[in-house]
Amino acid sequence: PGPDAAAQALWAAREPQLTKPGGSLGRLEELSSWLCAWQGCHPPRLERPVARVYAGNHGVAALGVSAFPAEVTVQMVANFQRGGAAINQLCGAFGVQLEVLSLDLDRPTADFTQAPAMDEAEFVAAVQAGMDSVPADADLLVIGEMGIGNTTPAAAVSCALFGGEAADWTGRGTGVEGGALARKIQVVAEGVARHGGQSALDILRCLGGRELAAMAGAVLAARLRRVPVLLDGYVTTAAVAALAVERPGALDHCMVGHVSVEPGHRRLIERLGKAALLDLGMRLGEGSGAAVAVGLVRAAVACHTGMATFAEAGVSDAGEK
Amino acid sequence: PGPDAAAQALWAAREPQLTKPGGSLGRLEELSSWLCAWQGCHPPRLERPVARVYAGNHGVAALGVSAFPAEVTVQMVANFQRGGAAINQLCGAFGVQLEVLSLDLDRPTADFTQAPAMDEAEFVAAVQAGMDSVPADADLLVIGEMGIGNTTPAAAVSCALFGGEAADWTGRGTGVEGGALARKIQVVAEGVARHGGQSALDILRCLGGRELAAMAGAVLAARLRRVPVLLDGYVTTAAVAALAVERPGALDHCMVGHVSVEPGHRRLIERLGKAALLDLGMRLGEGSGAAVAVGLVRAAVACHTGMATFAEAGVSDAGEK
Repeated sequence: PGPDAAAQALWAAREPQLTKPGGSLGRLEELSSWLCAWQGCHPPRLERPVARVYAGNHGVAALGVSAFPAEVTVQMVANFQRGGAAINQLCGAFGVQLEVLSLDLDRPTADFTQAPAMDEAEFVAAVQAGMDSVPADADLLVIGEMGIGNTTPAAAVSCALFGGEAADWTGRGTGVEGGALARKIQVVAEGVARHGGQSALDILRCLGGRELAAMAGAVLAARLRRVPVLLDGYVTTAAVAALAVERPGALDHCMVGHVSVEPGHRRLIERLGKAALLDLGMRLGEGSGAAVAVGLVRAAVACHTGMATFAEAGVSDAGEK
Repeated sequence: PGPDAAAQALWAAREPQLTKPGGSLGRLEELSSWLCAWQGCHPPRLERPVARVYAGNHGVAALGVSAFPAEVTVQMVANFQRGGAAINQLCGAFGVQLEVLSLDLDRPTADFTQAPAMDEAEFVAAVQAGMDSVPADADLLVIGEMGIGNTTPAAAVSCALFGGEAADWTGRGTGVEGGALARKIQVVAEGVARHGGQSALDILRCLGGRELAAMAGAVLAARLRRVPVLLDGYVTTAAVAALAVERPGALDHCMVGHVSVEPGHRRLIERLGKAALLDLGMRLGEGSGAAVAVGLVRAAVACHTGMATFAEAGVSDAGEK
């Protein structure tokens, strides 16, 4: 489905009446309009925002592409479950209901320098798990991920989808440096050489990971269920970029919550024609940047729904002088 | 007083133990450290954030420098009191206690193209009103303003403090265009020609306004009472810039909440060596951009105080592989 023109028209009828110069709330106005368009209702709601964090393990992690060992993925999932991670605090701060989905953590994807990361059945199962994770009664969906080594598949998917050199798309991730960074770039280049030139979804299957496939599924399901989406960082954006390459406009119901320090993320956002809401030097994943952006959505809804009109407040409008 | 080194040391001891790669929360880490330094305590608190909006009227408003008539200042103050303005909704969304201070609205400052905007007694009274408005038990202060025509004094103060052409510092404000914008630039140039070349505080007195003087007073009082400050847009930043010119470091307890569409604001932030937290295309004033940034401070406090350590969570740190 597309944007709801009736809800947008109601938004556009109310917004210029509010006691402020037209356009003076900038992107807060854009956010409340976007919510109306993709929730399909006016006034915009923010009563049930949810966050979903998808966790996966990666064959390429064994190649030394991360500063952390692969067992951290399952350890961090336990940390999410106990409420100790950044995303728990951020969801708490902004009233967002959080669930974490572990995708076969004891069965990493294949090393994509040697074989497709997933076969078709594995890929479809992961996409389906993502689709199933989106509640139909949510009014905003934050998506994020956890998976040691997964900026490597993010870089490989981005490079295969949009071209350029592996080095252009490969960053330090959790903190690799020097020889490890060179090794990571080499891994990305080998993966792209082996699996590039296919359809966008086959690129996601062969170079991605289960949590990336699940995020693509979640964004698809959110579109069908009229749930606007806040995307998190590089891995999340790379996962759903495949949908936009397959079908232009497929991400119109998504905003990019923040731009990560990973240089590939800024490049990727530009290719998608998007503008990130926040630029705070974050590079954690877990949906953390998108969760912070929920605060902006709260601000936008509060202003559009709660402000007085010029007539209600008895305030002179511009041009009445 | 300066930053509290003991509180900063406690922050620096805890932060690297939290379950995330070091530095991966970016400016959220900067914010929680800054709060500790200027609140003088660890852990950082956000239990009593307050916003103060200062309203004033301006002699130069009669010269046609705004798209709105001068009576809108008092009308908007009434709108603040009844809860209908953007700042009311934003303070509500982020749990900020709001008060509005009207500064002699029935007595506009003098037209600064003809005379000093304020005499010394008027200036001192406005500074004192600002100082008195800062509660000692606040743990964060948002400051903002309302005053039809007041981007004109903001531009004049900035130009007189930092040099350059009037046109470099003068923007569209609430929406002036064409001939009105040219007139506004001319007014700024005349004011700077008449009152430039004095001390920074005399520039603020002669080219500023009561709400600008009050904001400078509030920032001074906040420093003495150990209350960190979030600055709002162009008018707010111009008002307190005089303090930094008088004494380098005088704004170290202040963060710039957002960068406004007004081109002079970005220039002014650069001159002050600051980096705005948000860039959302806002240009409303009222403290609105700084109030949105309170959400970021909430996020920062939640992460630093609530996250589990690597040891608590049983998560392997980098380098343990």
